Amino acid sequence: MFEAEVRSEVLLEVLNVVSTLVDEAKFIVNEAGITMKVVDPAHVAMAEVTLKKDAFESFNGPEGELGIDISKLMDVLKLAATGDIVKLIHDEEKTALIVKVNNITRQMLLVDTASMSDPKVPNLSLPAHVVLSANDLNQGIKASESVSDHISLTMTTDGFELNSKGDTDSVQLKLPKTHLKKLECKEKAKSMFSLNYFSNMIKSVNKKADIAISMGTDYPIKIEFPIAEGGGEVRYLLAPRIESD
Amino acid sequence: MFEAEVRSEVLLEVLNVVSTLVDEAKFIVNEAGITMKVVDPAHVAMAEVTLKKDAFESFNGPEGELGIDISKLMDVLKLAATGDIVKLIHDEEKTALIVKVNNITRQMLLVDTASMSDPKVPNLSLPAHVVLSANDLNQGIKASESVSDHISLTMTTDGFELNSKGDTDSVQLKLPKTHLKKLECKEKAKSMFSLNYFSNMIKSVNKKADIAISMGTDYPIKIEFPIAEGGGEVRYLLAPRIESD
Amino acid sequence: MFEAEVRSEVLLEVLNVVSTLVDEAKFIVNEAGITMKVVDPAHVAMAEVTLKKDAFESFNGPEGELGIDISKLMDVLKLAATGDIVKLIHDEEKTALIVKVNNITRQMLLVDTASMSDPKVPNLSLPAHVVLSANDLNQGIKASESVSDHISLTMTTDGFELNSKGDTDSVQLKLPKTHLKKLECKEKAKSMFSLNYFSNMIKSVNKKADIAISMGTDYPIKIEFPIAEGGGEVRYLLAPRIESD
Repeated sequence: MFEAEVRSEVLLEVLNVVSTLVDEAKFIVNEAGITMKVVDPAHVAMAEVTLKKDAFESFNGPEGELGIDISKLMDVLKLAATGDIVKLIHDEEKTALIVKVNNITRQMLLVDTASMSDPKVPNLSLPAHVVLSANDLNQGIKASESVSDHISLTMTTDGFELNSKGDTDSVQLKLPKTHLKKLECKEKAKSMFSLNYFSNMIKSVNKKADIAISMGTDYPIKIEFPIAEGGGEVRYLLAPRIESD
Repeated sequence: MFEAEVRSEVLLEVLNVVSTLVDEAKFIVNEAGITMKVVDPAHVAMAEVTLKKDAFESFNGPEGELGIDISKLMDVLKLAATGDIVKLIHDEEKTALIVKVNNITRQMLLVDTASMSDPKVPNLSLPAHVVLSANDLNQGIKASESVSDHISLTMTTDGFELNSKGDTDSVQLKLPKTHLKKLECKEKAKSMFSLNYFSNMIKSVNKKADIAISMGTDYPIKIEFPIAEGGGEVRYLLAPRIESD
Repeated sequence: MFEAEVRSEVLLEVLNVVSTLVDEAKFIVNEAGITMKVVDPAHVAMAEVTLKKDAFESFNGPEGELGIDISKLMDVLKLAATGDIVKLIHDEEKTALIVKVNNITRQMLLVDTASMSDPKVPNLSLPAHVVLSANDLNQGIKASESVSDHISLTMTTDGFELNSKGDTDSVQLKLPKTHLKKLECKEKAKSMFSLNYFSNMIKSVNKKADIAISMGTDYPIKIEFPIAEGGGEVRYLLAPRIESD
């Protein structure tokens, strides 16, 4: 019998990230906590989300896999206020997950995990690296949405840039080195990405969090950020668009 | 000439309840205050809503009946802030109700009450009885909405239960005796109801209020709660669904 | 090179007014500040909006004209919080306006001003005059919306009235002289207007502002109010509807 208790806002942060890519996910339960590795249907983006045992109020039971309908679980969390404890229970002999919030017991059928892909998150060598505030990045994304459906990101020895160009209008977010939490870049790196994928992921990040971005030129981007106040982490990979300008 | 003054939020509480069942209602004005007896078009639910004379700031004039378009009156209340006084005036020689809020005078045609049914609220003998917080009940209803379109309510000597079962998933709200304000139940009572009717009514209740529920087995339910901080009361009856499980 | 800095909420107040009449506007830049003269496509209403040089944090450069897509500029302002400085830059050799907010640079194509009408705001002799709170007027408008698509305004030696009459219902806002900030009226003046035009304009006014209204009988109305805490002003003219009652 797997039993875990977690504050509702912690679980919600995890689900917010995972739901940007998939409707259903395999929760891998092991000694260290819970991990989800998900890839979107078009195979453009993938994420590895880990919530450590320490982020739970209690965590007991054997290793295993749970196929979860993300939106159903998010619906149950709407019953909880910040700070409320959510209890997850899985009896291995049953095909349902039991979720308890306050005096409510919600029983939901587990999803078959057999058909779920098990993406292997590649280990990329990405030369340029920056750490910046989620809030700054969000502003650049919001500004870009009225201009184009793609953005290009650039790192130089001087700083970080987000550019979006439409037919007549353009947006630039320019963050000089002094405005960044960290910058490791020996030579210019530049790649272009779908705004939609990028935007959905960044919007799921806690506004107060710092985001670490690693990239190369015309190469996938790696975005890492903490969840649950450091009790977990997200590693997100997004394939580049072929740049035409 | 009927003239009454009432705080806008008090009148709004009354209209919120009545509007869950009907678009138009007959306001019966008498010495004790105003009473509405309404039944929904499908004759599944009925409510008797009373606002006592004491709940008004002033209340003068002869007995009578006013046919009111509920949504029109609610529209006028949107002009008022909490605490603002709404004045209702009816000159018996005219077919209009005059509503005054701040410096606004709204004149609205009365609805013909001849075609309105005059439901007699039956006196049912219901053996099981519970008093609980509107908030607890609301959580059970919200959780049920993603699972099924009906709920079953159960009272035992130990407590109160709300259950909702879909094809694959289920919800249970279980309130033990210690969690209830009152429990009078000698033997188990259980009935099933349309979630939609039940939900609309309970959502119109002030979240801080206590709700009294009386029920039997496969029998109508009676729900009673105060409005206007005790200046009025609602008695609501809902027919059971035939239970098939 | 024209360069100006302005607090985002000040620019937003200007755009809120202008956007009720047009999608694109000519910003006339001169020594005194920026002025827009706009007329709606149906030529029923026009407005002259001025933002004085003093309302800007900085204001430099030659006189000129800028054709602005109002909604694009409003989109950029959504990136700014109250108090954030927005910088507008126009290089005369280029056909784009550059808008800077925080670390974002938004470049937007200017709209051709050749096809924009240059309405001459007429100097009307309007005998009746009142100053009242935007909030009072808004209540009258909101109440009228469920009753009719037009309103009549009346000024007498005693006060100000807004009336709206539908087939069965009616609304009256009556403000006696004592409730008005100012009343100059020697004989009754009464005109009827489209509720839609009137409502859109009044809703764009800061709720705390005072509105000055000048009118005659069956004649256009002139509405004046300050923007940016006195750093600018709006003069709005609306043609009457032919009264049929």
